[in-house]
Amino acid sequence: MGLKNTRAGNYPEWYQNVVSEADMAENSSSPGCMVIKPWGYGIWERIRDVFDEKIKETDHENCYFPMFIPLSFFQKEAEHVDGFAKEMAVVTHSRLSMKDGKLVPDSKLEEPLIVRPTSEAIIADSFSKWVKSYRDLPVLVNQWANVVRWEMRPRLFLRTREFLWQEGHTAHATAEEAEIETKRMLEAYRDLCENTLAMPVLVGRKPEHEKFPGAVDTYCVEAMMQDGKALQAGTSHFLGQNFAKSANISFINNQGQSEFAYTTSWGVSTRLIGGVIMTHADDDGMVVPPKIAPYQVVIVPVIKKAEDADKVMEYISNLVAALKKKAPFAEKIRIKVDKRDRASVDKFWEWTRKGAPVICEIGMRDAEGQNVMVKERTKLGTPEGKQIVKFDEFVASIDTRLENIQKEIFQKAKNRLEQNIRQDITSSEEFKKYFSQSNVWIEDGKQGKVAFVRGKWCADPESEAILKEMKITIRCIPFDQTGTEGVCLLTGKPATMDVIYARSY
Amino acid sequence: MGLKNTRAGNYPEWYQNVVSEADMAENSSSPGCMVIKPWGYGIWERIRDVFDEKIKETDHENCYFPMFIPLSFFQKEAEHVDGFAKEMAVVTHSRLSMKDGKLVPDSKLEEPLIVRPTSEAIIADSFSKWVKSYRDLPVLVNQWANVVRWEMRPRLFLRTREFLWQEGHTAHATAEEAEIETKRMLEAYRDLCENTLAMPVLVGRKPEHEKFPGAVDTYCVEAMMQDGKALQAGTSHFLGQNFAKSANISFINNQGQSEFAYTTSWGVSTRLIGGVIMTHADDDGMVVPPKIAPYQVVIVPVIKKAEDADKVMEYISNLVAALKKKAPFAEKIRIKVDKRDRASVDKFWEWTRKGAPVICEIGMRDAEGQNVMVKERTKLGTPEGKQIVKFDEFVASIDTRLENIQKEIFQKAKNRLEQNIRQDITSSEEFKKYFSQSNVWIEDGKQGKVAFVRGKWCADPESEAILKEMKITIRCIPFDQTGTEGVCLLTGKPATMDVIYARSY
Repeated sequence: MGLKNTRAGNYPEWYQNVVSEADMAENSSSPGCMVIKPWGYGIWERIRDVFDEKIKETDHENCYFPMFIPLSFFQKEAEHVDGFAKEMAVVTHSRLSMKDGKLVPDSKLEEPLIVRPTSEAIIADSFSKWVKSYRDLPVLVNQWANVVRWEMRPRLFLRTREFLWQEGHTAHATAEEAEIETKRMLEAYRDLCENTLAMPVLVGRKPEHEKFPGAVDTYCVEAMMQDGKALQAGTSHFLGQNFAKSANISFINNQGQSEFAYTTSWGVSTRLIGGVIMTHADDDGMVVPPKIAPYQVVIVPVIKKAEDADKVMEYISNLVAALKKKAPFAEKIRIKVDKRDRASVDKFWEWTRKGAPVICEIGMRDAEGQNVMVKERTKLGTPEGKQIVKFDEFVASIDTRLENIQKEIFQKAKNRLEQNIRQDITSSEEFKKYFSQSNVWIEDGKQGKVAFVRGKWCADPESEAILKEMKITIRCIPFDQTGTEGVCLLTGKPATMDVIYARSY
Repeated sequence: MGLKNTRAGNYPEWYQNVVSEADMAENSSSPGCMVIKPWGYGIWERIRDVFDEKIKETDHENCYFPMFIPLSFFQKEAEHVDGFAKEMAVVTHSRLSMKDGKLVPDSKLEEPLIVRPTSEAIIADSFSKWVKSYRDLPVLVNQWANVVRWEMRPRLFLRTREFLWQEGHTAHATAEEAEIETKRMLEAYRDLCENTLAMPVLVGRKPEHEKFPGAVDTYCVEAMMQDGKALQAGTSHFLGQNFAKSANISFINNQGQSEFAYTTSWGVSTRLIGGVIMTHADDDGMVVPPKIAPYQVVIVPVIKKAEDADKVMEYISNLVAALKKKAPFAEKIRIKVDKRDRASVDKFWEWTRKGAPVICEIGMRDAEGQNVMVKERTKLGTPEGKQIVKFDEFVASIDTRLENIQKEIFQKAKNRLEQNIRQDITSSEEFKKYFSQSNVWIEDGKQGKVAFVRGKWCADPESEAILKEMKITIRCIPFDQTGTEGVCLLTGKPATMDVIYARSY
């Protein structure tokens, strides 16, 4: 009942299988774009709700800015346009007309419009109108929106031409305040990844050549996928006065002088769902962390004789009511009773492939004996895979069960991450040998062939050419630098800076 | 402290003043698009949350479909493309390149992409893949998304090139089921408008020439603005098999035969906010119905001596805590303590212009006397405009206060609607005379010069030309037909059908 492909057999195909068998998303007839289906969108809604609360707690307000950005706005920040020019959807016409029996674009625009790849350019324009005095600062806004980057090799959730995200944008009176904001939101992302998605991350700063186009500093959270590749899960940018200067976000400071503001931006996207899949899913399909599962408990009625139906369904209703009544956590518990007219064994496997955390099968014998057959997704195939539990015991245990699953999958992923950062590679020869191997699935509790290397980097321009040639990347410069002396793993030159090397998505 | 323009003085300017003085939205440098600012977006978030719950209660699931629709998809449904071709944003290139020192569109797409004006065409394509058997039906999905229609005369909230909306799309095995769905969601819109937005509406069917392009039947909810013009607040379409045939949504029915499905679609947008403004705002600014107010209670500290600050703020904290503790309604109460460093009188007027339902001013004397100075937005300038109420009494009354405001503004608008539907016009001469007058503000409790006329329509094609010439529209064919005989108010021909005539936004 597992997937067509396993992680060990064909990792990329396994990923596609998980997405399609869990019915989370599919490729659309609109080239390079995806349809996010209810189970995938439900996960996004949970992520959004959790992070939206954090955004509001930290005094940010939601707004909505136009999706179309006049081309000339991009000309204002040279690095920014260089970074995005190759992947921009450009609107050039505002109607269709029939010509020679064919519909063709008509009414050419005076100025082409870019479908936002990110919104710094258009938001800076608004900030320039909103900010006049130091009393107007800080400005702290966020939007939940769709963005477009013209990817040539799209992959569901990881890299699609259109995706959903949140982008926070702020303006401050001082560099120091803006840097505090940048790191505060980086920490919010770490917290989101680890405590909501159960996905452990490394935090750090991006090297110069990996920075967001137009940023002074880019900070990031990086996760390790089950094949040892890195996934950039979120970024937070300190933009200095770059955008403030190009868009003229200036203010009169408390000394009466005119100054440019300091801005930041930070975002996470539906890509996180790709990260969750490759952190937790297994050869039987998806595993959704309870905190973001659209349904945390799925109840499958098992009705063998038609005359049992009423009794079984009544018993299930009582169970649902008891679960919902159990405060405080369970008040908001998300439960689905799957009443569809299908074989119960098929329903069980469907919810298993979807990764619902707890699946209960309930038949006449359970109703009569006041029992619940409990199957936890993460214990599938183990001796604890099927538990017959008393009604009251199950109700009493639900919070702990879900919390334990959340903890357990986080710990498993954390062990994987910690066991797979090689720190003992000290020469460029060893390093090249290590990365001459391909990335394959890292079996649970084991060390993989290839994953992350923590080692020295000299930051010389020639090292970047070597990275490109080796098709690896520097994921981040961790905050916890050792400061020891060593040699650069790329050039062999003396170096003291520690970085994380890896292949990446 | 009122607005620059009044409703009686210059109604269109008054509308713009309300939006800008309440800081709800502004025109963007992106032509024809708006920036929705926190107060406006907060209102939208409340509308979204309320209606999203309804969507889920009625078994619909949220999804997300691509914003780009290949041009060829529009060629499949002739009426549909005719209806939207003149207002489509067309993406024709996928990058920018530097040529002669100028950034220009580059990499022309093989097939142009349309930025969705609505998603029937792309969703029908997905449905055709999802639906194979009658067991796959019904399909009930919804998305919250941005859409683009190239308006030539944009107005904030009412008519902008990009706007936010929800669009529900469903497919069913029978026409009957699809019609039930269409009307069920129409009723959900009526309920949303009346019970959440406090905006009374008329419900009915659109005449043939006002139908959604590609629909068999369009149903609508229509509201009356304070100048007697109509605003279409929401529409629900029975699409028959039109889209199913053009996109091949076919299924094997329970008799083993292949059939086309029946589809529906329905939507409401940020336009509703324009409707709320023109239903409730007054010459002092916005009035937000409590159910959708981002903050229902705003507390303004009045600190005359610095040494009073601690005591006043402590008293306010106690008040907030007491309000939040008061279950059940007040558990979710939305309260803002405005701590900004500005004069309290300025803050009071700012929240008045924003239309916060209840504003409390609290100073040292209130703290000492355990009092609260309560100002209800809708009682501004009346003897009850300022009330000094005991702490406990205020806490005890908060649910009722907010409920009463909600009821009161609904009733006021309902009276306006009911008093301003003329039913006594029976000849085309009278009718033309009536509509030769311009729409101006309808004073509360009075009859306006021009608003709605309920009268007969013959449905002859020549009547449509008269409508165009008179610049009026048929808003709907109400469900409650009298069936009496009379003459068409446009042509003078015999007619039995009752319709609602009005100028409209």
